[in-house]
Amino acid sequence: MRELRRDPVIGRWVIISSERGKRPSEFTQEQEINNSKICPFCPGNEHLTPPEIYAFRDKETKKDKPGWWVRVVPNKYPVLGVEGQLRRTGVGLYDKMDGIGAHEVIIETPEHRKEMNELSDDKKLEDIIWMFRERIVDLKKDMRLEYILIFKNRGSTAGATISHPHSQLIALPMVPVRVQQEMRGAKSYYDYKERCVFCDIIQQEISDQIRIVTETEHFIAICPFASRFPFEIWILPKYHCARFEDIQRNDVSSLVQIMKTVLTKLDIALDRPPYNYLIHTLPLKEANQVYYHWHIELIPRLIKIAGFEWGTGCYVNPTPPENSARYLREL
Amino acid sequence: MRELRRDPVIGRWVIISSERGKRPSEFTQEQEINNSKICPFCPGNEHLTPPEIYAFRDKETKKDKPGWWVRVVPNKYPVLGVEGQLRRTGVGLYDKMDGIGAHEVIIETPEHRKEMNELSDDKKLEDIIWMFRERIVDLKKDMRLEYILIFKNRGSTAGATISHPHSQLIALPMVPVRVQQEMRGAKSYYDYKERCVFCDIIQQEISDQIRIVTETEHFIAICPFASRFPFEIWILPKYHCARFEDIQRNDVSSLVQIMKTVLTKLDIALDRPPYNYLIHTLPLKEANQVYYHWHIELIPRLIKIAGFEWGTGCYVNPTPPENSARYLREL
Repeated sequence: MRELRRDPVIGRWVIISSERGKRPSEFTQEQEINNSKICPFCPGNEHLTPPEIYAFRDKETKKDKPGWWVRVVPNKYPVLGVEGQLRRTGVGLYDKMDGIGAHEVIIETPEHRKEMNELSDDKKLEDIIWMFRERIVDLKKDMRLEYILIFKNRGSTAGATISHPHSQLIALPMVPVRVQQEMRGAKSYYDYKERCVFCDIIQQEISDQIRIVTETEHFIAICPFASRFPFEIWILPKYHCARFEDIQRNDVSSLVQIMKTVLTKLDIALDRPPYNYLIHTLPLKEANQVYYHWHIELIPRLIKIAGFEWGTGCYVNPTPPENSARYLREL
Repeated sequence: MRELRRDPVIGRWVIISSERGKRPSEFTQEQEINNSKICPFCPGNEHLTPPEIYAFRDKETKKDKPGWWVRVVPNKYPVLGVEGQLRRTGVGLYDKMDGIGAHEVIIETPEHRKEMNELSDDKKLEDIIWMFRERIVDLKKDMRLEYILIFKNRGSTAGATISHPHSQLIALPMVPVRVQQEMRGAKSYYDYKERCVFCDIIQQEISDQIRIVTETEHFIAICPFASRFPFEIWILPKYHCARFEDIQRNDVSSLVQIMKTVLTKLDIALDRPPYNYLIHTLPLKEANQVYYHWHIELIPRLIKIAGFEWGTGCYVNPTPPENSARYLREL
C-alpha cells in the first residue's frame, strides 16, 4: 500500500507507505547507521542502487559505472512512486489519493567520508547545487506534481541510514501543510505591506547586525529571530527570487561558499552535529512570485522534541539566536 | 531571558528560555535519564522540588511531606513564569511578548516505577485525571492565559529527564499554531456541515470497525485514518464536549479504564515504548463549543523525524493504522 491520506481536521496529508512496513518487534530495536556493510553509494558499487537517473560524469564513462562526481538514483525504498494514475477518492468522511510522486537520492560525491564543506573542488560542489536544479526542472514537466522538496539528513539522529554524503528529493502531488502555512503568511504580509516579508527580514538583519552568521556576495546566513532550535540557521539569497530553480549558474558559487562556511562553523562549534537542511521554494503551480522568497533552513539536531512541541507546534529554545549567531560569527 | 517571539512568516510563537541555556559543548553529549541520583519525585524527597502547589493527600499529613498520592509542583526549570506583566512589543519588523505563563509537574504516584496502567487503586488513578482538571480550573482565573496544555513524556526518547511517572502542564499567553490549525479546520467543517468533525469521525469509525483499538462506556480509542506514526492513538469521549475540564467525575473512571487498556496494549506490543500523550482542548477564551471536541493524542516514539517531515509537516507512516489497530485490538 502506498497512498496519501488527508487528516479531516487539520487538512494535513500523510503518506502511508507500507512497503517500508515493519512489524511491532522491529520498532523496539534502535536503528543505527551500519558502517560495516558495503556502501551502495561508493564508486564501484553502482549496481547496488536502482539504475541511475542522471549523473555528472567524465565523458568516456558509462551509466551505472564509476567516473561520476554527482549521481542521482531512485530511492531503493521510495515513499511515493512515479507509475500509475493520480486518483482522488473519498472513503466515507475521509479523503485519499494514490501515492504518486518521486523519491530520489542525490549522491553528492564519490568520497565516502567527505561532506560538502570538507571537499576542495568548488566546481564539483557547484554541480551538487546544479543537480538539485536540474532535477526540479525535469520533474516540473510532470503535471501531476505540486511540490518538490530537496533535503538532507546528516547523521543517524537526523534520520540518515547511510553515512555516505547524500541529499534526497521528494516530489509530491499536493502542497504540504507546512508550506501552505508559509505561503499564507508571506501572502498576507505582502497584501498588507506590498513588500516581500523575507526581503524585509534581510533588511532588518543587515541593519541589526546581531543575528548574522556570515555573508557572501549574493547570500546571507542568519539565526532567525524566532528560532525554534539552538543554532538554527536560514540561508537566503539577498535578491528577491521565489523559485530555487531560477538560480543562475553565476550565483551558485556564492551559495556554495556560504554553505561551506556555515557547515564548517557548525562542525567546529558542535563537533560534527547531526543536522537536516531543507530548501523551501515556491509550489510548482503558483504563478505569483512577488510574495515568496526561496531559502534554506538548517537545523542541527541537538535537543529532543517532547510532548509540548508535538502538541502545540510551539518550540522552547534554550539558546537565544543572538547568542548562537555571535558564537558562530566569531569562530 | 524568558520571552515569546513570533515568526513573522508563519505566525508561530517560540519560547526563548535561556535560563535553561546551554553552551555549545553541552549539546554534544547525549542526555539520558540519570537513575543513580536521588529521585526528587519520591516520597521523603519533597524538599527537592519547589514548594507544592496542590496535592491529594491523607488528612493528617502536611504540605511538602509524604502522605500524598498525586502531587503538583512548579517545574524546577520552568519555560515560562507566573510573575510580571504581559507586555507585547515590536522590535522593528518583529513581535515579542514577555514569557508569562505557568509550567507545572503533576507527580502521578508515590511509586517510582509504576505507570498509570501498572497501578491497581483505580480511585487514586482517577485522581490523576481529576488533578489535571483541578489545575486547569484554577489557572483559568488568570486572564493573561489563553491556552493550557497537559502532556506526558515517557522515556528518554520522548523527552523525559526523570523516570518517576509524571505529567506536565504548560499554560500559555497565546494559542499555539498547531491548536489554531485544528480550530480552523474543525470550524470550517462545522460551517459547511453543521456537525462536529470529531463526532463524525467517531460515527465513521464505529461503522467501519477497522481502526478501533478499544472502547469503554464513554470513550473510544482509535488509530486515526491519517495517522502520522505507527501505533498513533486518539482517545475521544463518545459524547460531544469541547473542554477537557468539563469532564464529570462519573466519566473519569471510564477514561481511566480506556487509558489503562491502551497503555497496557502498547507496553506489550512495543516492549514499553517511549511515548508522548497530549490533551487537546478548547482555547480558554473561545466561547463557541459546538465545533470542537476534546481528545487525547498518544504517540509512541518509534521512528525518527527526518528532514522531509520538518520541511513539509507531511509524515511518512510505514504502518497503516488499520494494521496497528488490529494488532492492538487482538492483544
